[in-house]
Amino acid sequence: MTSTTSKADESGSEGVTRLVAQNEADNPSSKKIVFGADQALALDAGEELGPWQIAYETYGTLNAERTNAVLVCHALTGDQYVASQNPITGKPGWWSHMVGPGRPVDTDKYFVICANVLGGCLGTTGPASANPATGKPWGLDLPVVTIRDMVRSQARLIDHLGIDTLFAVIGGSMGGMQVLQWAASYPERVFSALPIAAAARHSSQNIAFHEVGRQAVMADPNWAGGAYHEKGLRPSKGLAVARMAAHITYLSDAALHRKFGRNLQDREAISFGFDADFQIESYLRHQGMTFVDRFDPNSYLYVTRAMDYFDLAADYGGSLARAFLHSPTRFFVMSFTSDWLFPTVESKVVVKALNAAAANVSFVEVESDRGHDAFLLDEPEMFRTIRGFLTGAANARGIPAPGGGL
Amino acid sequence: MTSTTSKADESGSEGVTRLVAQNEADNPSSKKIVFGADQALALDAGEELGPWQIAYETYGTLNAERTNAVLVCHALTGDQYVASQNPITGKPGWWSHMVGPGRPVDTDKYFVICANVLGGCLGTTGPASANPATGKPWGLDLPVVTIRDMVRSQARLIDHLGIDTLFAVIGGSMGGMQVLQWAASYPERVFSALPIAAAARHSSQNIAFHEVGRQAVMADPNWAGGAYHEKGLRPSKGLAVARMAAHITYLSDAALHRKFGRNLQDREAISFGFDADFQIESYLRHQGMTFVDRFDPNSYLYVTRAMDYFDLAADYGGSLARAFLHSPTRFFVMSFTSDWLFPTVESKVVVKALNAAAANVSFVEVESDRGHDAFLLDEPEMFRTIRGFLTGAANARGIPAPGGGL
Repeated sequence: MTSTTSKADESGSEGVTRLVAQNEADNPSSKKIVFGADQALALDAGEELGPWQIAYETYGTLNAERTNAVLVCHALTGDQYVASQNPITGKPGWWSHMVGPGRPVDTDKYFVICANVLGGCLGTTGPASANPATGKPWGLDLPVVTIRDMVRSQARLIDHLGIDTLFAVIGGSMGGMQVLQWAASYPERVFSALPIAAAARHSSQNIAFHEVGRQAVMADPNWAGGAYHEKGLRPSKGLAVARMAAHITYLSDAALHRKFGRNLQDREAISFGFDADFQIESYLRHQGMTFVDRFDPNSYLYVTRAMDYFDLAADYGGSLARAFLHSPTRFFVMSFTSDWLFPTVESKVVVKALNAAAANVSFVEVESDRGHDAFLLDEPEMFRTIRGFLTGAANARGIPAPGGGL
Repeated sequence: MTSTTSKADESGSEGVTRLVAQNEADNPSSKKIVFGADQALALDAGEELGPWQIAYETYGTLNAERTNAVLVCHALTGDQYVASQNPITGKPGWWSHMVGPGRPVDTDKYFVICANVLGGCLGTTGPASANPATGKPWGLDLPVVTIRDMVRSQARLIDHLGIDTLFAVIGGSMGGMQVLQWAASYPERVFSALPIAAAARHSSQNIAFHEVGRQAVMADPNWAGGAYHEKGLRPSKGLAVARMAAHITYLSDAALHRKFGRNLQDREAISFGFDADFQIESYLRHQGMTFVDRFDPNSYLYVTRAMDYFDLAADYGGSLARAFLHSPTRFFVMSFTSDWLFPTVESKVVVKALNAAAANVSFVEVESDRGHDAFLLDEPEMFRTIRGFLTGAANARGIPAPGGGL
């Protein structure tokens, strides 16, 4: 495991945090592999990307048979620090309830790999990374990437690690899209697949919300046509608005009502003004402000675009079932009752296609009022059912439990 | 009825449209009443507003008994041109399916009044109006107004027109909030009240969406702290982003899927770029762009704030039923199944309070997949039930049908 020393105090100046973030784009605190120009990545956009690099983190130990590797795929603004401290924010891993010793994805038993996505900004090649041709950040010169490109890059990492078949590929939201793409692109390399709070295609409404976010970033004059790095600018206000709008979609009406209601923030009465009178306003502003220090605005454009472009059935003549035909993979599909960004109906579309393809599939809908974010939170039913599914799959795969024995 | 000649070609240059819009703020194409400093309006913010003016439109004829007046209250970005051409956009009245000769709100039978709201930008005093003290636009010097202030201003208009009791007050969304406020503030002056797709308080999630919109406007450097008028600027990009985000909330996932799905805009394949590849993106951008020419950015802040502040029960010791105690008004509450901005549960809260107050109430939930916008669209069940309710109420009130007889 990589050092978990925080490079920036969480409450430190935003300048420092941002400097750290900028440095992480090329020189991540995590492990990384650099692929040369002779090992270029062929992208869906029709271009070759090389040299390029992938940043990743690992937890646990790969067994001698190389059968216990679990790939965790992260969501839109996630990173490789799934179970260890984030070097920019100093916060614990984003899924440390799920991944770690004794956790459902038990690092005493499995070898866990998590890589920053292509197009991201935490060490895998993205628009904030240095373009080898110029030495300056790629910006919008980087070809637009897709979920399939992300998965291709991860497959190169898995090759490099000498792993033939992953025991499991697991992820929520955009991570779940990658899981589905993995199962479709490399069925023989995926023993089990766990797409959580995800969908096989991005809906019209979700594209709409992403478009609002992108327009907010691009409307900021400091975005400068994507060339803010070289001009010493930062479209922080635009990115903050984008994050605020997106953040609402991660929650639920019920959760917001329970958490904030119409409570006022540090005041007894409304101010008859445009300050943050309500707690929900103050909370959203905070979400926006903290986000801009850790995430590259152009990366936000690229990664949202990758999600928008995702439509797995379209790659298989419009038939999602065809994407999974003769699949040897065991699937575990999960949704949450109050998730309106990736509602249960989207997961059921996947389950139906898997059934039509005669694949092995389990489906769990978790009762929760926490919206899409539920997959990142402490949801006992999620942990219990994922642990159960993985234990069954591990038995079938012959992976011994910690301390020996099956 | 006022002349319906369009002052700007709908496809005309945005400069011209904007000039017309700016002029309408002080010199509306509709009727208007100017109240002097001696007729100031007492605002919830604790300040007196005067001189001030209210712009309104009327349709039909007030009967000799003055019993057939219907007040229509408009929504966030609506105006007084409920059933006649909008002078800025050249488009037909925003509710011309509902209001007009032979329509459910029949102008052959009723005398219909619709006023621009306080804080608006179509002729009633708002931040774009000239501040009498300076001759320049009020901007943020205008006190923040509330839904109750809007209703107070309308009551002054009704006084001026010599109408004691309104036969009906009707409106959707923010218009419905005004309807509820009318019934609470002036029960003896409201024979029947029809709040449609509304709520007795703005929810946490709705405040959140409004806050995103306001932040988008205020993040635009051209907003200039609200002083864009005098600086010859216009925060168009910020306001367009605000409108785009809001517009998503007016529709429904199902409607977007049916209308746009993942269809591409004027192209055969995705472009691997950030142009509007998808129809939904193109549609949203269009919504944003056309909005900025007709609406004042500061007005957007004021009117969204008024909605956020609305919490009728809070004015009655936390008991919504108390707001309607001993009410002589006949209520007709309507919601739409796919409306997630003002979901049915919010209407049911109102109905429950009315029942607890032993008020006379009918409730209809209309089956529609068109989301919140349904109340503005061609929804036969809405028209049929509202026509039926109004006819019954008119009979009870002794308003003759067109052509004589009850």
